[in-house]
Amino acid sequence: MNTPVQKETAAGLKTNLGLILEENLKLAEQLDFDQIALLLPYIQHAERIFLIGAGRSGLALRSAAMRLMHFGLTVFVAGETTTPAIRKGDLLIAASGSGTTSTIVKAAEKAVAAGAVVIAMSTTADSPLAALSALTLILPAAQKQDHGKTISAQYAGSLFEQAVLLLNDAIFQTLWAADGTPAEELWKRHANLE
Amino acid sequence: MNTPVQKETAAGLKTNLGLILEENLKLAEQLDFDQIALLLPYIQHAERIFLIGAGRSGLALRSAAMRLMHFGLTVFVAGETTTPAIRKGDLLIAASGSGTTSTIVKAAEKAVAAGAVVIAMSTTADSPLAALSALTLILPAAQKQDHGKTISAQYAGSLFEQAVLLLNDAIFQTLWAADGTPAEELWKRHANLE
Amino acid sequence: MNTPVQKETAAGLKTNLGLILEENLKLAEQLDFDQIALLLPYIQHAERIFLIGAGRSGLALRSAAMRLMHFGLTVFVAGETTTPAIRKGDLLIAASGSGTTSTIVKAAEKAVAAGAVVIAMSTTADSPLAALSALTLILPAAQKQDHGKTISAQYAGSLFEQAVLLLNDAIFQTLWAADGTPAEELWKRHANLE
Amino acid sequence: MNTPVQKETAAGLKTNLGLILEENLKLAEQLDFDQIALLLPYIQHAERIFLIGAGRSGLALRSAAMRLMHFGLTVFVAGETTTPAIRKGDLLIAASGSGTTSTIVKAAEKAVAAGAVVIAMSTTADSPLAALSALTLILPAAQKQDHGKTISAQYAGSLFEQAVLLLNDAIFQTLWAADGTPAEELWKRHANLE
Repeated sequence: MNTPVQKETAAGLKTNLGLILEENLKLAEQLDFDQIALLLPYIQHAERIFLIGAGRSGLALRSAAMRLMHFGLTVFVAGETTTPAIRKGDLLIAASGSGTTSTIVKAAEKAVAAGAVVIAMSTTADSPLAALSALTLILPAAQKQDHGKTISAQYAGSLFEQAVLLLNDAIFQTLWAADGTPAEELWKRHANLE
Repeated sequence: MNTPVQKETAAGLKTNLGLILEENLKLAEQLDFDQIALLLPYIQHAERIFLIGAGRSGLALRSAAMRLMHFGLTVFVAGETTTPAIRKGDLLIAASGSGTTSTIVKAAEKAVAAGAVVIAMSTTADSPLAALSALTLILPAAQKQDHGKTISAQYAGSLFEQAVLLLNDAIFQTLWAADGTPAEELWKRHANLE
Repeated sequence: MNTPVQKETAAGLKTNLGLILEENLKLAEQLDFDQIALLLPYIQHAERIFLIGAGRSGLALRSAAMRLMHFGLTVFVAGETTTPAIRKGDLLIAASGSGTTSTIVKAAEKAVAAGAVVIAMSTTADSPLAALSALTLILPAAQKQDHGKTISAQYAGSLFEQAVLLLNDAIFQTLWAADGTPAEELWKRHANLE
Repeated sequence: MNTPVQKETAAGLKTNLGLILEENLKLAEQLDFDQIALLLPYIQHAERIFLIGAGRSGLALRSAAMRLMHFGLTVFVAGETTTPAIRKGDLLIAASGSGTTSTIVKAAEKAVAAGAVVIAMSTTADSPLAALSALTLILPAAQKQDHGKTISAQYAGSLFEQAVLLLNDAIFQTLWAADGTPAEELWKRHANLE
């Protein structure tokens, strides 16, 4: 039997998880799926796919990177040990809520200079990152430093970071459906040394 | 103007994101928030918090680890460069869908042997990990190798991994509400060397 | 002008760096280069190369992994985001001073079960890791927990970890000399998104 | 019995390892230990120590970071999950052969702006990084893109990266000697969840 404090905590948890899901549902309703659909051929036809993001956006993109690898594509995360130089024919997927994170913008500049295509996931199409991108997918979530809570009641960029994960999982699910490879085939590619 | 193929892709993306959100809503309805509430005092009173998970569950827990650090707690992710030895007074949060991942179970054994408390996030309470845990929070999602799609139509452990992220964000939001520190204070702890 | 304490520190630094180099020179004299030479054809002919090591040995192997990637080989570090499953035709290079580190031994077991070849770098040929390995390159350095300082006056496995880095750099230099690719060609593969 | 090719490979390995050790010995003779001695009080008195480096220099610094953690200091590697904001009272150790790597220079700028002290390890005192540093320890090794082999016959920045590891191990050994803590005490801090 829980104490009154525990009961209150339980109620808070339920409310907050409800709020998080509600915010993601509302964000999903505002997505431009016609535009997002344009990303898939880039993924399917890129020679190699590179992903970059800072902090929690970067972690969400790493989850996406794993799935793309399970799918049989050649995928690299910027900053990892054996990630090679990006070059013509490659695709860079970059996530940045504000589109101004300096390491991400620098990387996008280098990718473009190397002849690669950059596609951004961001809250805005008006940013240095967007300016470098062939396509900017807009996830209408609060930016990290917008503490006013007008779009999201969550802390900092949480809604954007959650949406990056969930949208990429929807992208994977759609790529997979179009491809039809059995789950068992994908499963064989899962890391087996851990 | 999109082609018919693009229109179909857009429709697929919308359906799949809807499905993902629907599965997370359904999972949320089945959570035992009274039990989950028991985790919060452990987080609040642990000397140091360690987090461990493999693959995408591990990435979801890293997102949680960042937030707990922003909140001012002493937090370490297993396997990172300067993560020290766990000891009495510390808390280990371990995520594993099946509760059988060998590196996670081994780590839980070592944590218990060192006198630390282990709390699991898993799809089942009947596992070696659960047996080592003071508390096992059940996220009723398909296990990774359950390709039968009875609980989730998503690939492998996707639903579990999404739920680990979203639930931990709800836990953070609840800890934060109880604490009342302004967002600006938390913001000052965000990594500033990247 | 330095104080007496600073002078003493400077003298200590000089002595300790001299000691470290001396220990590495002595270790190098005891290496069986005929045996180490057997590793190179495995590297040259493997479909893909995986590397695994814990702690500082793991960091030394990551430095080796970067160079092998610069060299144009397909190289993965165990535990990184997009590292796929190892399989027949692949090579696993595993470094463990004692040859008993449980995560490394488990990984070697899985690699062998998958049909891959395992080659160990270790201080001993009498270990579970060596038993799984097609070849065990012996680096005669103290093991981590040998605090008696009979072989090395350095802390823990430092000599072994240094030797793993230096030997792998000698291996790279030898592969490169046999191959003759200009440095400029290798340079083009260096990560360009950081 | 080895084939002629294997014999040649063995001879090449021996020559190359000899060359690597020779280059490190020569570099050690040119170090200004009086200057390097000035780093130790910074390490001993910093509230927290942050380390940053790209590529193989970064890996060498991570090895140093582990030892400083074993020694009982509060140590963070830039870019890892729970690394907090740097602030006044903290020390940033930055390794960059050229002193121009943009992510490292940016990080040094932010560290200085936050009131932290920056100490560089570099091949030159004439660089943007050196300009931001309270102290620049010079390791006289070829820079990465100096393919002329005038200082080192090794590929790219290999000599610098090796020297960063070996010098930091000498620094650790000297700190440890001054402190006198038994190896067994340090050993207890080694990561025990892997």
